[in-house]
Amino acid sequence: MAGALLCDEYELTMSQSFWRQGDTGPVAFELFVRSLPRERGYLVACGLHDVLTFLGSFSFSEDDLSYLAAGGRYDPAFLAYLRNLRFTGSVDAVPEGTPLGAGEPLLRIIAPRIEATLVESALVAIVTHQTMIASKTRKIVDAASGRDVWDFSLRRLHGVGAGVPTARAAWIGGAAGTATVEAGRELGIPTTGTMAHHFVLSYGMDGEEKAFAAFLREFPTSGVLLVDTYDVRTGIEHAIAASQSTGIPLQGIRIDSGDLVEHSMLARRMLDAAGMTAARIIASSDLDEYRIADILDRGAPIDGFGVGTMLGTSADAPNLSGVYKLVAQEMHGRWVPLMKCSQEKATNPGMHAIFRQDAWHDTVSLVGENIPGTPLLERVVEHGTCCSPSPSLSAIRSRCAAMMAELPPELRLPHPTRTFGVQLSGALTDLKEELMAEHVQLRLHRTPVVAS
Amino acid sequence: MAGALLCDEYELTMSQSFWRQGDTGPVAFELFVRSLPRERGYLVACGLHDVLTFLGSFSFSEDDLSYLAAGGRYDPAFLAYLRNLRFTGSVDAVPEGTPLGAGEPLLRIIAPRIEATLVESALVAIVTHQTMIASKTRKIVDAASGRDVWDFSLRRLHGVGAGVPTARAAWIGGAAGTATVEAGRELGIPTTGTMAHHFVLSYGMDGEEKAFAAFLREFPTSGVLLVDTYDVRTGIEHAIAASQSTGIPLQGIRIDSGDLVEHSMLARRMLDAAGMTAARIIASSDLDEYRIADILDRGAPIDGFGVGTMLGTSADAPNLSGVYKLVAQEMHGRWVPLMKCSQEKATNPGMHAIFRQDAWHDTVSLVGENIPGTPLLERVVEHGTCCSPSPSLSAIRSRCAAMMAELPPELRLPHPTRTFGVQLSGALTDLKEELMAEHVQLRLHRTPVVAS
Repeated sequence: MAGALLCDEYELTMSQSFWRQGDTGPVAFELFVRSLPRERGYLVACGLHDVLTFLGSFSFSEDDLSYLAAGGRYDPAFLAYLRNLRFTGSVDAVPEGTPLGAGEPLLRIIAPRIEATLVESALVAIVTHQTMIASKTRKIVDAASGRDVWDFSLRRLHGVGAGVPTARAAWIGGAAGTATVEAGRELGIPTTGTMAHHFVLSYGMDGEEKAFAAFLREFPTSGVLLVDTYDVRTGIEHAIAASQSTGIPLQGIRIDSGDLVEHSMLARRMLDAAGMTAARIIASSDLDEYRIADILDRGAPIDGFGVGTMLGTSADAPNLSGVYKLVAQEMHGRWVPLMKCSQEKATNPGMHAIFRQDAWHDTVSLVGENIPGTPLLERVVEHGTCCSPSPSLSAIRSRCAAMMAELPPELRLPHPTRTFGVQLSGALTDLKEELMAEHVQLRLHRTPVVAS
Repeated sequence: MAGALLCDEYELTMSQSFWRQGDTGPVAFELFVRSLPRERGYLVACGLHDVLTFLGSFSFSEDDLSYLAAGGRYDPAFLAYLRNLRFTGSVDAVPEGTPLGAGEPLLRIIAPRIEATLVESALVAIVTHQTMIASKTRKIVDAASGRDVWDFSLRRLHGVGAGVPTARAAWIGGAAGTATVEAGRELGIPTTGTMAHHFVLSYGMDGEEKAFAAFLREFPTSGVLLVDTYDVRTGIEHAIAASQSTGIPLQGIRIDSGDLVEHSMLARRMLDAAGMTAARIIASSDLDEYRIADILDRGAPIDGFGVGTMLGTSADAPNLSGVYKLVAQEMHGRWVPLMKCSQEKATNPGMHAIFRQDAWHDTVSLVGENIPGTPLLERVVEHGTCCSPSPSLSAIRSRCAAMMAELPPELRLPHPTRTFGVQLSGALTDLKEELMAEHVQLRLHRTPVVAS
């Protein structure tokens, strides 16, 4: 797992200052997504599992410490302190696979200040990446209306290291599986593989039928043939001929270019005419929820989709505004709520609970308020140790599917017309206003240091 | 480094079929970007270093093989063959840091067919990711016209594992450094760290000046103070007061919200009035080349930019159409050129050379053609072993800066009005047309198997 130096340097500079001041008491940070991208009616919470792995192995190696020492920026006594640092705090989190809205805490860390400070960038990266992918995949899966969607995105990610987390988030979001083999090995996610154009080319420019026959013999129960290396109609003819000559039933074909509606209709007619009604038609080629909805609306008889680029980069919304904010700190044995008041970036003060009112309406309250609804945040780590059994990947995936099924279609459209509803409780609203006013008061009563 | 199962499953299925047919002779694949995103006038080649690391350590572990065996899809004899497989081929590549256009081979692999097949997804992911980041960063750096641009993107990446490659690509593209500490440790890239809002909040809502004073004392020669936790004007007042009360010269301030033009002008006036003319003004907050060009046009006195989300996700073009295509194979001791003829996705047949005509015009030819200009592809791996010394990171960065300086401004604008020029040689054009015609001939002379 990632080392502790996969952080932003300010986490270290601030920590040294905290350490110097002896400011190492308990604090609470919450991780949330500031706003929904325009085409997202909801988010699917994802990434908690990797957060727990990261926190569980959090430590500075001797190499890390030597590097920091060599730079001369850090106090040797501070580095000695880092040597023994582990994550000893607690984590409250929304279960993975849960749909939710903007501004809701996906995760709360309560920990000694320096520990909570040093894990910021890693936690934000892990949670916002996987939440982005799970949310995008869910939209694509909804657009495919029951047809399989496969994650084909490995080559489009920020390096291959993103392959397994992406496949996992896509699977939670409802993908039928992935082409990334390592995700099968590590997590048991179903994998799939057809063929590339170069397989067909390898038989020479007149060898398509021969290529198909060889592949069918190799994978008689799973072989899917890619028919557009030269020309789709000829490719389908060759696929049919290869099945007939080998006597191996054709499982399916894949079309990866051109007009997918026209080509899939042609393929269906040709396959049916050859009696191959069970052969499935798989489509790929820059697909996303918008294109899938469109080609299905136009009657394309496609049975499954391979989705790469648009899924793996969430191309229409390639980042989420995930932030990790200090919401409270313990002072003299009492938790004091805090908020940032920056223009347009003000945060909600205090530690929060989420209560689900119905499938797509939540109330965010202060912890301890008595609000109707089902509480969503669960304590998963206590004193640095997992205190709740991790659900299986398939349980997370089922949770997501079940909760999504309750959302109205307006949130689930490619271009949603409603968004997941989040309201603040009265007490939280009051506290926010009170602190804002208190801050304005403070500011008004200061004498400016310089004129401007 | 990444394991061999970080591949798409079709690489394994095809390989088993090749293995069965004894089809393991030499082939040539080229990796190129099909087209430039709309707002990119050029690409900056990047990622070769990690490609060489990947190829150098390419192998299947016993865990990998056990997993594949357990699935029942693969022949045990094929898995035994994989056990001993290493990369034994050659690599020709465009040096990192080189600006170039669409359709030009960044990389060519000549290797036994199965080796070349199994590395596809990893090579595409590595090269297109890093090329995307280097290209985006270069645009941002150009927009900043000499002011520093820092990579602040760790939290927005596809997991923290992308932190070091992103920082490296950004550095090659001209960033002044990164906030990602691990990139400093692994690669010696300069790192920077200021403070977060929670540092200020930790001192309580009336403790901003105290927070600033503590930070200045901790980092007297490098401390940059974040002034917008509550209110920018008050924050600047507190920064000035903290510098005055501690007697430590203010190195700089950072503004992370609101109107950066207005706020930076206010800050400059206030700092200058306090005699702090050397204090630098750093801006962050969803910046990219478009916003930076705009705020500088409007006269913002900003000295440096922290750029996170837009750099790390290349948000206006969050993926490149990088592909890895079979261009030739050896048959009976002779190299036979190949091409894919799919609609709108036809490739260039044969192995290619690139000749640079001037700073922004290349000719792509067949290998062996006598073309004027400077050849760009260099042999870097021979028989699986590096055969050319890797340039240092700073040499790559300097190469990029020097070559970019030769490009006309029209290619380098936030909205470029010209793109890097790439033409095919006459012989390549002829070969492509010939093979297309040959393919059409083949198709016309077949009798359709089914009517449709």
